[in-house]
Amino acid sequence: MSLPVSPLAPASFPDLPVIRGVRFSAVEAGIKYQNRTDVMLALLDSGSVIAGVFTRSATRSSNVLDCQDKIGLDSDQGAAILVNSGNSNAFTGRFGDGSVAAICETVGQATGLPTTRVFTSATGVIGERLPHERITSKVGDLVAALDATRLDDAAQAIMTTDTFPKGSKAQLDIGGQTVSIAGIAKGSGMIAPDMATMLVYIFTDAKIARADLQALVSRINGQTFNCITVDSDTSTSDTLLMGATGQSGVDVTGNAAFEEAVQQVFLDLAHQVVRDGEGATKFITVAVTGAKSDADARTHALSIANSPLVKTAAAGEDPNWGRIVAAVGKSGAVADRDTLSIRFGDVLVAEKGWVADSYREEDGAAHMKQPEITIQVDIGLGQGAATVWTCDLTHQYISINADYRS
Amino acid sequence: MSLPVSPLAPASFPDLPVIRGVRFSAVEAGIKYQNRTDVMLALLDSGSVIAGVFTRSATRSSNVLDCQDKIGLDSDQGAAILVNSGNSNAFTGRFGDGSVAAICETVGQATGLPTTRVFTSATGVIGERLPHERITSKVGDLVAALDATRLDDAAQAIMTTDTFPKGSKAQLDIGGQTVSIAGIAKGSGMIAPDMATMLVYIFTDAKIARADLQALVSRINGQTFNCITVDSDTSTSDTLLMGATGQSGVDVTGNAAFEEAVQQVFLDLAHQVVRDGEGATKFITVAVTGAKSDADARTHALSIANSPLVKTAAAGEDPNWGRIVAAVGKSGAVADRDTLSIRFGDVLVAEKGWVADSYREEDGAAHMKQPEITIQVDIGLGQGAATVWTCDLTHQYISINADYRS
Repeated sequence: MSLPVSPLAPASFPDLPVIRGVRFSAVEAGIKYQNRTDVMLALLDSGSVIAGVFTRSATRSSNVLDCQDKIGLDSDQGAAILVNSGNSNAFTGRFGDGSVAAICETVGQATGLPTTRVFTSATGVIGERLPHERITSKVGDLVAALDATRLDDAAQAIMTTDTFPKGSKAQLDIGGQTVSIAGIAKGSGMIAPDMATMLVYIFTDAKIARADLQALVSRINGQTFNCITVDSDTSTSDTLLMGATGQSGVDVTGNAAFEEAVQQVFLDLAHQVVRDGEGATKFITVAVTGAKSDADARTHALSIANSPLVKTAAAGEDPNWGRIVAAVGKSGAVADRDTLSIRFGDVLVAEKGWVADSYREEDGAAHMKQPEITIQVDIGLGQGAATVWTCDLTHQYISINADYRS
Repeated sequence: MSLPVSPLAPASFPDLPVIRGVRFSAVEAGIKYQNRTDVMLALLDSGSVIAGVFTRSATRSSNVLDCQDKIGLDSDQGAAILVNSGNSNAFTGRFGDGSVAAICETVGQATGLPTTRVFTSATGVIGERLPHERITSKVGDLVAALDATRLDDAAQAIMTTDTFPKGSKAQLDIGGQTVSIAGIAKGSGMIAPDMATMLVYIFTDAKIARADLQALVSRINGQTFNCITVDSDTSTSDTLLMGATGQSGVDVTGNAAFEEAVQQVFLDLAHQVVRDGEGATKFITVAVTGAKSDADARTHALSIANSPLVKTAAAGEDPNWGRIVAAVGKSGAVADRDTLSIRFGDVLVAEKGWVADSYREEDGAAHMKQPEITIQVDIGLGQGAATVWTCDLTHQYISINADYRS
């Protein structure tokens, strides 16, 4: 199935900077897809540190379990990240564990790294045996092709139902030295927070201790990838890995500008995943304020963002704010009909338990016709706030998912 | 928008028995729909008792709030139930409260009942002023037309996006006397448990105290209407009312056969609501066993039943059991990849953390081609069990909901 590029896609893939100390390659291994790359390798020099966050699914894949075993180890021996698309190696039992071991062993031998420094991810269909021989037989080619400028190739190789590759970057000057950050991600179905909901790989040449990088990654993940939802379904394979090579020589420990730059890259990639949500034609920001707590605000926001009725109304460009009222009402968090207010963009739609006197249907309809929609809800009970991002639910989502395996 | 009748509809509307002591009528009030009835009235003789369960939505309608105020009162003065379709009178602020008061006042005057014995429901679009004058001006006609045989007319009048009217009945012999039960319901979108998720009216000529009827209704509701989900969206208007006139003269207090008959009617109506789920082409039973607790089993079952990926796979007749694994994994209830087993109908698909040795894809595919699908999941960790019912997610759901108001 070949899909048209999402109408919400960025105009072009960004020109990613070289991250000193890390090289990339991609090959065609024929795992499931034909005539396209489906395996990527990233090799980080010695002195690099790796941090990560992973799906909390109780049925997570062998690859995720293996990464989780390794992520907390301190080491300066460098690291490799190998990712395949086309098969998620999830729910493949002990065979899946064996596939991960075989891949790590082969990559370790080819790169001189211990297997504890080889991280893997897999994305695609669940429950089918991963033909890992097709991957291990290509590891030599992957190592031979490593190149500091090939991160864009890696972004292509990890796509599944994605309609465009996703990349983002930031560069900042710290004390006269340039620090670079570059990342790639893939979506685009089975996307819901808890945790990150996709595959994401981000690299920087900044210098930072592993534990500090891990704290940074966990914190920013909570404000970015954990705030997006396409279809409320959490993947068994979600993985975010961030590597810091240190080769800029710039120590960024506690540096606010660096944290802001990382946040910008995370948020950009998270938004790109939503923009490539299966069948998406609308990019929807749901901003909830005035809740009893931030947690309540997040519960309301996700209830709105995951409501099939809200999402189909958006698809139909229908300013059907009654469905937003219903989504707030069902969320389980505290709300009061008579203190609630709702805005589409800047248009006040409802307040004091009813449609606003000033509201004209054509103003709401005009906002819904935009490709980017903002739903603002003030609960009117406190100071809690949360923003999440989602897309609409369209015929194309059904088409993609009713015959994904066929 | 005129919709084809659901392929899952029963062959015909049942021939409902007369319930001694209650009469029905329906009229065209032109609230929103044209050329069809849109208001029903049920009038129960003095000596009747009424019980009910209602949506827990924090933004529930004025009608629901008013019913909740009245439902616990003991009275033997009889009762009236007036229901309109086309407008839910939800999120219409104090104006909505006024509409309910006006309708209750008019019905009270026309029937000689105090307003505390008039119950109302409304279903349809949220947030638009209910033109209640169109209803009150027809109350005289409604009272004049009351007839013990007109429950089927009432079932027609409360339909919104329903493609068929929903009725069910049971009759049983208790000590040589016949006790009758007859009920009607409407669905069919914004259906998710918490509570009942639709409008349901059930009548019996059995004799039972109000408090006992209420306990019975609450208990059986938990096993029937609270176990269905179409789209995970909870309505602001959900109401179930059951009236017992006592005119059979048969006291059913604590009678197990009566409880079983009531359960049969509730379950039949609940299944009919799922069979008329917006766009449904598959009736799906999700049965979870072996969970740590019944509550965990229900959490897993609803996670499967509400997963858009599971529901679109069913629409595509794809035995994509990997999505069931993912839904169990994300539910938040306890599960273990290696003790889980999955069956489609009688076909063992997966066990011990992987696809079953005996599984052949064509067997799973054959089951998915049936209009009625059973997904059985054994968690393998305890004795908890739960069964829920849902339907698939199709293009037609998108079509219905992307332009419902247009």
